[in-house]
Order: sequence, then structure tokens, then C-alpha cells
Amino acid sequence: MIETDFDLLKGIANQLRIHSITATTAAGSGHPTSCCSAADVVASLFFGHMRFDAKNPHYHNNDRFILSKGHAAPLLYAAWAEAGLFPTTDLVKLRTLGSDLEGHPTPRLSFADVATGSLGQGLGVGVGMALAARLDQLDYNTYVLLGDGEIAEGAVWEAASLAGIYKLNNLIAIVDANRLGQSQPTAFGHDLGVYRKRFEAFGWRVETLDDGHDPEEIIEVLSGVGLDDKPLVIIAKTYKGAGVSFLQDLEGWHGKTLNADEASRAIAELQPSAKSAAGVAIAAPNLRPAPANVAPASYPPLGYKLGDSIATREAYGAALARIGAVDQRVVALDGDTKNSTYADKFFKQFPARFTECFIAEQNMVGVATGFGARGKVPFASTFACFLSRGYDQIRVAGISMANLKLVGSHVGVSIGEDGPSQMALEDLAMMRAIIGATVLYPSDAVSTEKLLEQMALTKGISYMRTSRPKTPVLYGNDEAFPIGGAKVLRQSAGDKVTVVAAGVTLHQALKAADLLKAEGIGITVIDAYSIKPLGKEVIRAAAKKTGNVVVTVEDHYPEGGLGDAVAGELSADGIKVHKLAVRELPRSGKPDELLARFGIDAAAIVKQVKALA
Amino acid sequence: MIETDFDLLKGIANQLRIHSITATTAAGSGHPTSCCSAADVVASLFFGHMRFDAKNPHYHNNDRFILSKGHAAPLLYAAWAEAGLFPTTDLVKLRTLGSDLEGHPTPRLSFADVATGSLGQGLGVGVGMALAARLDQLDYNTYVLLGDGEIAEGAVWEAASLAGIYKLNNLIAIVDANRLGQSQPTAFGHDLGVYRKRFEAFGWRVETLDDGHDPEEIIEVLSGVGLDDKPLVIIAKTYKGAGVSFLQDLEGWHGKTLNADEASRAIAELQPSAKSAAGVAIAAPNLRPAPANVAPASYPPLGYKLGDSIATREAYGAALARIGAVDQRVVALDGDTKNSTYADKFFKQFPARFTECFIAEQNMVGVATGFGARGKVPFASTFACFLSRGYDQIRVAGISMANLKLVGSHVGVSIGEDGPSQMALEDLAMMRAIIGATVLYPSDAVSTEKLLEQMALTKGISYMRTSRPKTPVLYGNDEAFPIGGAKVLRQSAGDKVTVVAAGVTLHQALKAADLLKAEGIGITVIDAYSIKPLGKEVIRAAAKKTGNVVVTVEDHYPEGGLGDAVAGELSADGIKVHKLAVRELPRSGKPDELLARFGIDAAAIVKQVKALA
Repeated sequence: MIETDFDLLKGIANQLRIHSITATTAAGSGHPTSCCSAADVVASLFFGHMRFDAKNPHYHNNDRFILSKGHAAPLLYAAWAEAGLFPTTDLVKLRTLGSDLEGHPTPRLSFADVATGSLGQGLGVGVGMALAARLDQLDYNTYVLLGDGEIAEGAVWEAASLAGIYKLNNLIAIVDANRLGQSQPTAFGHDLGVYRKRFEAFGWRVETLDDGHDPEEIIEVLSGVGLDDKPLVIIAKTYKGAGVSFLQDLEGWHGKTLNADEASRAIAELQPSAKSAAGVAIAAPNLRPAPANVAPASYPPLGYKLGDSIATREAYGAALARIGAVDQRVVALDGDTKNSTYADKFFKQFPARFTECFIAEQNMVGVATGFGARGKVPFASTFACFLSRGYDQIRVAGISMANLKLVGSHVGVSIGEDGPSQMALEDLAMMRAIIGATVLYPSDAVSTEKLLEQMALTKGISYMRTSRPKTPVLYGNDEAFPIGGAKVLRQSAGDKVTVVAAGVTLHQALKAADLLKAEGIGITVIDAYSIKPLGKEVIRAAAKKTGNVVVTVEDHYPEGGLGDAVAGELSADGIKVHKLAVRELPRSGKPDELLARFGIDAAAIVKQVKALA
Repeated sequence: MIETDFDLLKGIANQLRIHSITATTAAGSGHPTSCCSAADVVASLFFGHMRFDAKNPHYHNNDRFILSKGHAAPLLYAAWAEAGLFPTTDLVKLRTLGSDLEGHPTPRLSFADVATGSLGQGLGVGVGMALAARLDQLDYNTYVLLGDGEIAEGAVWEAASLAGIYKLNNLIAIVDANRLGQSQPTAFGHDLGVYRKRFEAFGWRVETLDDGHDPEEIIEVLSGVGLDDKPLVIIAKTYKGAGVSFLQDLEGWHGKTLNADEASRAIAELQPSAKSAAGVAIAAPNLRPAPANVAPASYPPLGYKLGDSIATREAYGAALARIGAVDQRVVALDGDTKNSTYADKFFKQFPARFTECFIAEQNMVGVATGFGARGKVPFASTFACFLSRGYDQIRVAGISMANLKLVGSHVGVSIGEDGPSQMALEDLAMMRAIIGATVLYPSDAVSTEKLLEQMALTKGISYMRTSRPKTPVLYGNDEAFPIGGAKVLRQSAGDKVTVVAAGVTLHQALKAADLLKAEGIGITVIDAYSIKPLGKEVIRAAAKKTGNVVVTVEDHYPEGGLGDAVAGELSADGIKVHKLAVRELPRSGKPDELLARFGIDAAAIVKQVKALA
């Protein structure tokens, strides 16, 4: 727009309100009043400020827009329909099974980079996108629209802090301060000064809008985007249900739709000043070269020796640096544990592609998701137990069908003296339950490296569980580790039991096999490096030869981990699974002492096998 | 102390440093430099400010001290030993298997109300304790010592915000700003002004200490505790490794112990000014009546009618209000969803025992844990999927052996139109994997109420999964639902398959039983209301009669939920489990449409049974 037509923007906002009300009334559910409060901001952004190709939402230099308050989805859908991406007549399909216009946005829609609706998560993703823009030398901006209720979420402040630290002036947050939450008013109502102080303290430039329904005010503050070296937040004073006399600023309307009569009355109020956006020119993005973002044809070879002693966490660091050298898409993130996870091996070689997220794991997962949404292959690492802090972000990444690689070190009682607060004993359960996720658990350096190659090559969420203790190299450098496979490491005719293990317990199982062999008892030992998808064909075939008797051994609680995976996938085939796992609250001690104390060492395996043989 | 002897406090601080170094060197692991930075603050608090009975750490009106930076555990242990709780000679047992002096504190120790060490969690617990003090009309204060690294955690800001909102002037945070994180300096180093602005913006009174190693400065600002109506934070400028010339303010010493020679040199520097605290008078707490905190002998009766249609989430609200009426220990918390979880039924009757936590679930779990640590029975509710945001807090509550009751509503695809971001499909996996947790999943109003009674009566962590759709009442008002039980609802001679279900899928199973019966196929139907511990005797006995063929049906992903629980517990008995679960990323639609689409409705059960019969 050469000269902004504020009346037109106001009119488009009302058209968006009408669409939002019509669609939610048709659906019989949804959040029309949450759409109304943000309608003027969205109309101003889409039709008076942002630069994007509305026919091609994925264009690499389009400004990005994240609707963190995802329950205002009908407003977002209306904006894209008005921008010409799809017919406005589709909007009434909202929330029906046949339509991708779901209750909250997901990337089934071309214009939703990530799923939103689980509150407090948009800003972290925005930080990742803003960092990706900088890395790719693109000049698009990332706009994140938040509700005032959701900024009670700590994840928002983790993101705000990191954006301030890295001076992301290509990131713009807009807070739709409509003062009403779901069940009561927000804590701060229309006291915009509270929000101003908080964002300023977190390193942001702050603009407040006394009238968040005035496109002129909105466009004026937006004109200051990028003017200094700080991220910008705009706190817009708005009213829930704005524009409709019997909705505006009233409690009791959250997540409530209008009945047919109410909808008619609302539309009658809005219609006179509503204007279509059809034909309105949207500013085009600047032409910039697209980032390459291509996968490498091959990786540099490995040079491990059988029997070398290397912790899988250390092999992870080595692998990440090796893979990163030939794959510019690879970026890494860590939460101030990089010297323990060994992500520092990558950091030292490729500092520009490394993001220190400090001790803020929800945000680390969000930032990584943002990188992934921009074509990068993000590896985020910390102690595995601390990934539990970001579990909702991981859950939503599943819904986003995100390209996200998580690596958790220091798992199980085998970490030893630090004690239970630092031991991941539920991470397999947590990660297996993520839709579409791949869960890998290597036992030696070679499998760690080979599995990491596949994580980088395969789009989607994957999780690698690495261990603290050093373990011997079991495999030759050319061994292949297909996802969904498993390795039979010991097998003889007459074996009594199949023992399935991974990580430190695999080495205990091998030791147990030696001890049992000396007593004339044979066992089959399987390396279940692929927990999800499970290498079930291999396990099934081996188990059949041992009378369907299987023992699983895991440095994890008994619920949701390896044992449940094997039983859950194979009990229907008649396989009988006896689980060895950590069944009590653990405590500090030496790793070997703890493996023994909690019944997952070689001696425990021997005892269990003898009881079954 | 009548007149504070600052030299003595300084001397005690050095004695605590010596203990910390000695113990970590003996252990061969730990964080001596993180102890040294906070030694003067801890010495001043314990021996110059806090009021407590050092022989009885659980005394109800003792000031509480939470070491949020739990890796400084040796310092905490040294302080309690010097206070006379146990011999200082025990300190060298640090981190050994036989000792409760673990790498990070847990409530195995009488003076640790909660486990710490997973960073960012202490302040939320402190908020709960401060609220409990207010509720119980006790005048103890709650002191929380945080590291500067950990205040990057969003959970800290969730807690800070709530403490500001509720004006908790009985809560004192001390930030040990030693400027060095684990892998690099913190983002803000010694710029205390950043922290000042942040806490002020979050509603706190802020004091900064230019020298966090000077007891006189420390005691002076502590004398201002409770003087106004805000929580107080003290930002102490300190040095990691303070007091030892070759450690102080140097990078590379995080989580590193001194070798014997280094320890000797360090102790030689500290010894000349070290002083024992033996015989130092500690201020006694005021005498106040102890809160009753007793369980009721019985609960008011229920008045449901068979076939009445009530959502279990609504029955939860009714139960909470009914139980709360006779049990003053019961408090409730919610994250701005109380009109959906029906916690508002309690809120309306007992507002003084309800804490609105706003949209900040990590903190809600922390606050509830704090209430539990003070003898309350806290029920915290939100949409089940949002509990995933507090998963690390829940994990650590497990380590704390906390008395914590979580209730998650809106589970599974049966919520319908809101779509996947609002659907909990991994909550059973997540909660089953918490050590010691009880996981309950009622299917009707009566079982909801009866199970809630037991949650209130039984100390420990328990989780109840409630559903959004209305379901008919299945049980009489006097039916008992023992934890670890299951109910056989349909069973006849000649049944082909045992179907195990809970929640909405139980009602689908009953429908399937009717449909199959009409075709002459009998099935046994089991209500698995107790997911952990599983009602496995009942399931095993029933399965035996149907040729060990079991079908599980759950509104949950296939990993870690009901199916894995049954298979994981019973495959060793030869039971063959066929899992019906949500196997794809779900989407918006009507509840019944989605149950059908994702293969967990009556028709899907009929089909599965026929394939097996």
C-alpha cells in the first residue's frame, strides 16, 4: 500500500469478525469473541503491513505470522481467505471432519507453520524462525500474536529473554490484551503498564496501543519494526467481542458461540462498515536467494575400533560435528549442558549454527521447532530428564509434524552419584507417546553415529537416548542400523531365553550371556536400538526360538519403556515378556552399585533367566 | 541472636565451605564451587536470621528453607549438621549408597520438604508453602535460594508472577548471582540491574547486595522481611568458588571436585577464619497452634441414579466440593480452566481454599506440591494435555514422595471439535511413568466420586483422568472401587474375548457387547478404572476364561497407556493383548465421528472381536 486506507482496514476487520462469527455459529463451537478482539490487529498486519505472497504461503522470504492464541483460528482462516488463498465460502466448514480448518490451526494448512492452541508456545517458535532468518540472510519478519492470558506461561518469558539476549529485531510480538481469560479476568486486566515493564525488563522495545481497534494506531507502531536492535512487542488494549454491542468486554463469553439469532444481530451491527479485502494489494516480499537446505549425498566415514570405550553421549557430539560438516541444514541447541551432552563439539566447530538457550528447555524445544519449520535440521540436547520440562512443546511439535531432533543424555540410574533428580527414567515413555516420533537408544559409538545420520536425513520428530558411562564399541564402522531394526548379538541353538536390552543394560546382558554360558545356559541377546518403531520382526523371530520367553532389561521405570514396547507389540503373538526395570525410587550411589541395587545388572539378568530356564 | 556477630557468621560460612569441599572431594563428585558462592547467605540465614527448631525440622511453625539450586546440597547438609541435627562427621558419606546425603536433596532427609536439583522449581513450591502459611495463620517465612542460571527457567517467572499477584510477603527469594553457569557464563553476568528490573516488574520488592559474601549486608536486608505487602527478592552478587583463591570466579570449575591436594590447599586458606556453629543460638519460632490437618472419618453419601447422564469431569467438581466440605485439608488449584474442569464447584463454596494459578501449569504443580508439603491435600486441575507442561514438576514430585493430586479433563479424541492441541492422548503414558503414582480413569459419576475419596485419603501422587462427554451412571451409590481393582461388567460362559476399557471407550465396549450378543457372540467387558496399579487379578481371571484373548480399547495413543499396561503386566501369564487406540494424528470433528474415525468405537470393537472370535 502506498498510502494506507485506514477505513478499509477497519472494514476488513469487521469482515473478518463476520466470518469468525458465521463460521463458529455454523460449527456450534469455537471462540468468536477471542477473534473479535484481535480482528483489527490481524487486518492491519495482513492488509496493511506484512510482506508476503498470499498465493504461496511457503515462499521463503514471506513474513511469518504465528497465531499463538490459536483459539482465534477462525480469524486466521478468514484473513487467508480474504487474502485470496482459498474461497471464503469454505470458512463455514470450520471444525468439520472433512475440513482442514480445524478448531485450532495445524500445518495441514499451508499457512500454519506450526500447530498452535496449546498456549504460550508461539513466541518460542518465533524466536527460532527469527534466528533462522538471520542465519539465512533473509529479511522476512516473524510476527507472533499472543493473548494476554497466555503470557502467564513461563515459556513466554523464556522466549522473551532469549529474544532480548540475541537482539532479534526481526521478531515482533503483539499482545491482544482483551483483559478476559477463560474462567475470569486476567490478573492485570487493562493495566498495560505491567506488561510494558515486564517486556522492557526482558530486553524488548515496547509500544502500547491505547486503542487496539484503531488501524491507524496499529499501523503507526508497526512502521517502527526493525528500527533498533531489540525485538518489538506491541501491547494492544482491546475488548473481547469488540464490535458487537452485546458481546464486547463482557464475561461469560469465552469459547461460546452465538446462536442463529444472536449471530444475525451481531452481523447486522458489523455489516454496514464491513469491507471485503478482495483486490487489496498485499506488499510483496523482497527478492532474496532461497537457502539451499539440501541433504548431503553421503557422510564422512567413521574410524572407531571394536572395543574402544566411548560414552554414547560423546559419540553423539562427534556425530553431530561430523554430520554438520557436510550438512548446512544442521543447527544445534543446548540448555547450558553442552559440555555434558557433548553438543560443544559442534559448537566449537560451527558457532554460527549453534544456539545457546540457557536453562530454559521449553523454549529450547520451541526454538528448535521454529528452525525446523524454516528448513533446518535442529538437534536440541540436554539431560534427558530435563526434556520433560518441554513435554508440551514436544507434544505440540508432534501435532505440527515438525522436523525436530531431540537428544537426551544422562539417562537412568547409571548416571550414579548425582541422584534421582538428574536421572531420566521416564523419557522412553514420554517420547514413545509422541505421535509419529522415532525413539532410538544406541549402545555404542558406531550405532550412535549411524542412527544420528538417519535422524538428520528423515523428516519428523526423533529422539535419541544417550548414556553417561563409557561403553565398548560393539560394531564395525560399516554396520547399518535401519530404523525399526534390531541386532541379534548372541544366539545359539538351544537358547532358553531371549534377552532384549539397549544402552548400558545391553552390555549387562552380554556379560550375563557369558556368565550363563559358563554354566551351560544359552541366551539370545538382542540390541533393541530402535525402540519406536520397534524392531519387532527380529525380536519375534528370536523369541520363537526360545519358547516365546523374553526378558527385557532397561535403565528406565517399568512403565512405557522397552518392556512395555515389546509386550505391547508382541504379546498378541504369544510372546511372554518378563520386565527388568527400575521399580523403586532410586538414589545416589556408584553406577555399578545402582545397576545392582535396582536389579538391572548382569547378576539380575542371570537370576531372572535361571528362574525361567 | 540479640546482637548479630558478623565475624561469627563469616566464620561459620567458611566452616560450611570446608565441609562442602571435604565432602565432595571424599565423594569424588559434586559442586563445591556452587556451595562456596552461597555459603555466606546460608550461614547468615541459618545462624543469624531464620527462626526454627533445629532439632525438629518438621515443626509446624519453623521457617522453611528450599534449596532450589539443589546442586549446592553439601552446603545445605553442612548447615544442618552445624545446626546440630546430625554429626558433622556424617558429611563425608555424601553421595554414597548407604547415606541419605545424596547428590541433590530429597525428603528422605527430614529437613528437605521437597526434592530439588531439577532447576527452576523451588520458587513455585515456595509459593505453595507461603500460601499454606497464610491459610493456616502461621507466621513462618519461606526462604528459597536460587541460582542465577536457573532463573532463565520460565517456571521461576510463573511463580514470581503469582507471588506478586497474591502479595506473598512471607516469601523470600535469594538469588545467588555467581555469574557462572555450567558450560559458560550466564547471559547477564553480574549485571544485577537486569534481575532487579525483572523481579520489580513481576511485583516484588528487590534488594541487591553488592557483596553477597558480607554477612552484615545480608543480615541488614533480611531485617526488612515482611515490612511491606510484597514478596522480597535479594539479588546477591557472589563469586563461584568464593573464599578459595584458585577457584573464585573462574570458569571450568562447575560440577568439578578438588583433588586431595587442591582440597588441602583450599582448606588451608579457609581454616584460619573458620568457626564452628556449635552452641550458636538459633532463633526459636513463635508458638502458634498447629493446623488440624486431619482426615475425615467418612464422607457425605452420593445421590446418583443409574443411567443419569453426567460427564466424569462434572462429577469431579461435585466430588471435590463434597469432600472439601468435610476435609479442611483439601485445597484446590486450577489454571484458568475451572469452568471446564468443574473445579469451580469447589471454588464457589470454598474460595479461601482455592488458588487460581492462571495459565501457568508448571507453577500450578509446584504450588500444589508446596501445599502438600505443608499437610494439605491439594487437587490441581486443568485440561489433561496441559499437565504435560508441568511434567518435570510432576517427575520431581515423584522424587519428593509428594502428596499431590492431579486431575486432567478433556482427554482423547472424544473432546471433538477443538482438535488435537486440546486432546490428551499421552497423559496415561506420562503419569504411569511417575514413580509411586496412582493412575485412575473413572467411567461414570459414582466411580469418579468414590475414587476421589481415596485420592484424598491416600498419601502420594495420584492422577485422575476425566472425560468431556456425558456418560451414563453405571454403578450404585454404595459400590466400592478399591485402588488396584477392576470391575467385570459383562461376563457369560462361552465369552470369546475379554474387552478391557475405561472412560468413554468402556461405554463403547458395552455397546459392542450388546451388538455382538445380538449376533450370538459373547464378550467379557471390564472397567479398568485403576490403570496403575492395574486391576490385574481381575483381568487375568477373566482373560483365562476367554482363551487369554484380550482386546484393550483406549482414547489414547497406543504407547504407554491401557494396552501397554495390560500387556506389560500380563503377557508373562500368556495373555495376548490386541490394542485398539488412536494410531494417527487426530483432527477436529464430532466426538462420535472421531471415535469411529480413529477406530475406538463400538463398531471397531465388534470388528476386532470378530477377527479374533
